[in-house]
Amino acid sequence: MMDEVEQQARPGSYKSSSERLSSRSEFDFITYIRRRSNKREMALKADPSSSVFPDPSSLSCGIGDDAAVIKQLTGRDTVITTDLLVEESDFRRDSTRPHLLGHKALAVSLSDIAAMGAQPRWALLSIGIPLDIWDSDFVDQLYEGFFALAERYDVRLIGGDVSRTPEKIVIDSIVLGECRSGHAVARSGAKPGDHLFVTGSLGASAAGLRLMERGARLQKLGASDDDSRSIEQLLLRQLRPEPRVGWGLVLGQERLASSMIDLSDGLSSDLHHLCQESRVGAVIESAQIPVDPLVAELAGRRALDPLILALNGGEDFELLFTVSPENICKLPAKVDGVSITQIGQIKKASEGVCVAEGSRVWSLKSGGWDHFKIN
Amino acid sequence: MMDEVEQQARPGSYKSSSERLSSRSEFDFITYIRRRSNKREMALKADPSSSVFPDPSSLSCGIGDDAAVIKQLTGRDTVITTDLLVEESDFRRDSTRPHLLGHKALAVSLSDIAAMGAQPRWALLSIGIPLDIWDSDFVDQLYEGFFALAERYDVRLIGGDVSRTPEKIVIDSIVLGECRSGHAVARSGAKPGDHLFVTGSLGASAAGLRLMERGARLQKLGASDDDSRSIEQLLLRQLRPEPRVGWGLVLGQERLASSMIDLSDGLSSDLHHLCQESRVGAVIESAQIPVDPLVAELAGRRALDPLILALNGGEDFELLFTVSPENICKLPAKVDGVSITQIGQIKKASEGVCVAEGSRVWSLKSGGWDHFKIN
Repeated sequence: MMDEVEQQARPGSYKSSSERLSSRSEFDFITYIRRRSNKREMALKADPSSSVFPDPSSLSCGIGDDAAVIKQLTGRDTVITTDLLVEESDFRRDSTRPHLLGHKALAVSLSDIAAMGAQPRWALLSIGIPLDIWDSDFVDQLYEGFFALAERYDVRLIGGDVSRTPEKIVIDSIVLGECRSGHAVARSGAKPGDHLFVTGSLGASAAGLRLMERGARLQKLGASDDDSRSIEQLLLRQLRPEPRVGWGLVLGQERLASSMIDLSDGLSSDLHHLCQESRVGAVIESAQIPVDPLVAELAGRRALDPLILALNGGEDFELLFTVSPENICKLPAKVDGVSITQIGQIKKASEGVCVAEGSRVWSLKSGGWDHFKIN
Repeated sequence: MMDEVEQQARPGSYKSSSERLSSRSEFDFITYIRRRSNKREMALKADPSSSVFPDPSSLSCGIGDDAAVIKQLTGRDTVITTDLLVEESDFRRDSTRPHLLGHKALAVSLSDIAAMGAQPRWALLSIGIPLDIWDSDFVDQLYEGFFALAERYDVRLIGGDVSRTPEKIVIDSIVLGECRSGHAVARSGAKPGDHLFVTGSLGASAAGLRLMERGARLQKLGASDDDSRSIEQLLLRQLRPEPRVGWGLVLGQERLASSMIDLSDGLSSDLHHLCQESRVGAVIESAQIPVDPLVAELAGRRALDPLILALNGGEDFELLFTVSPENICKLPAKVDGVSITQIGQIKKASEGVCVAEGSRVWSLKSGGWDHFKIN
């Protein structure tokens, strides 16, 4: 029987989650959940004669990662993540389209699985919707967007729940993935001397959000000129993010990344999360940050600061990862057409988290997304 | 590599979910989700050289069960379920207490795992909460209620998400369980001639809901007399349901149940769900239905019909299951102090789903809970 119970779970995904909370919550809440979930006074109360697994398995701990890891016995681990999207907090019905919303609901969870270096396999989708949109084709279109992305990555919808809400839409997206045993990439593995990389480019999603806040809408755009086409592309980076599934797999399977996180809250906040979990510091070169070219192009005319958008803008869903010096040469130049940029280096914790701008070095504050911050 | 990919997933939990929808939705929605989730035109678009699992595993299908089943290679299957609770649809803040809400959020998912005959192991909890209650102790109390139940069954919280909502609380509870390979009990295994059983007693949760709708509240009760104590117990059956985890395990592990479902929507609806999935009919004896004694006691004075509450009242979270004649003698009398009652028999599909009352037999309509029904 024992060979059936030797399983480990590495708790994970109080993440984008608790990290978006206010100052009281961000740390207190993670501490509270970690403390409570580690409490080992548990006793199986079910009839002992009926218990397949009478011996609670040995569990490691570590809430505060992109996804939780459940160790299987077949040389393979299961990773699982959940992401809650709430209307008016995470999206506005008048700024998106149902199929884009379905895409994004899945994309944010795929991004978490990618950040663990795992292969996404299965999904569950819980939706709460008001009665007035039930009879429209909103829900069907939402699922079409979900399925279109799921099929690209061979992810299978295996369950979910539907409930009625008084007014607002809520969506909880759950994705399970797999990786070889021990290959899941945690946030906690960065070492001083490791190089810091980011996939793709930054700031476009936040720029899209700012433009929407100023009234830009997809349906208003005819894409008749270059400017309109650029705006449309920025809006789509916010509304239809592309998870870096291919990069996550390469970095996880080939054990190239020593630590990894997806950029959901913003580079400044997410770098702090990674450094906290790894108990290290970091310095990034501001000139190396891959600001999205569209952001750089439009920013001046629209009073947006490209570097601030790239540092503090959330939801780029690029991967931020660290690589030890000996593995740098093994990194492919591109995966799925997406390149990577070395933006800095991991330092000792005592050196803090900093940005270097020429000869000036300043301390980097967490300036990313926070659900409970009053703006 | 192939031994790593021979995995199956039996989709599951579009259940309490879609079954609570209106007539257009209840069937169309399940059909749509089933059709789409079975679509096998998927192609893995990630860089083939980077794919651990290039061959999509052979998948069985069957959305429409209490939980989804993922077949592992270790003689053990993983089951997973998700349940969305929305304020004003599924609970009212002024009628419950935060720790009871935390208990219930987990209990409803444990009940799904029990209905699969599996051992609950891990949980994730996503919550969306308005800013005004974030700084109160509401969330802490909610988690205390959750953890108190989790610890009774040795279930470990491994992740979750927190988001801000404009006004209403939403909770998505995800539970993963395990069972021996092939031991998961589906809704679809009932055969004509099988006997139909239910755990515990029925109607108390619905009676508690009716009393709350008429203004009864836990805090108003001093439990100073028998009547108040009875009301309090009925309210608690609605607010703090007990999942039948022990019974689920016995019935699953010892392969005693040929099919099983938990009574979340109500006996009449859930019996229809079981019969539909098994393609059978059933007859239940109204005199055998184990109406909760408190319901019977209070019903007359409060103009409630005990039999209607037991048939159509939802959220009893008892288990409804079928047993072949040769296995009847192997059933224990009680598990965890809870007994079972034989309430009827499985028939051929052509005989429909009926209730016998003495010599009269009438057709049983689905009269249970429906999220999208206008009352």
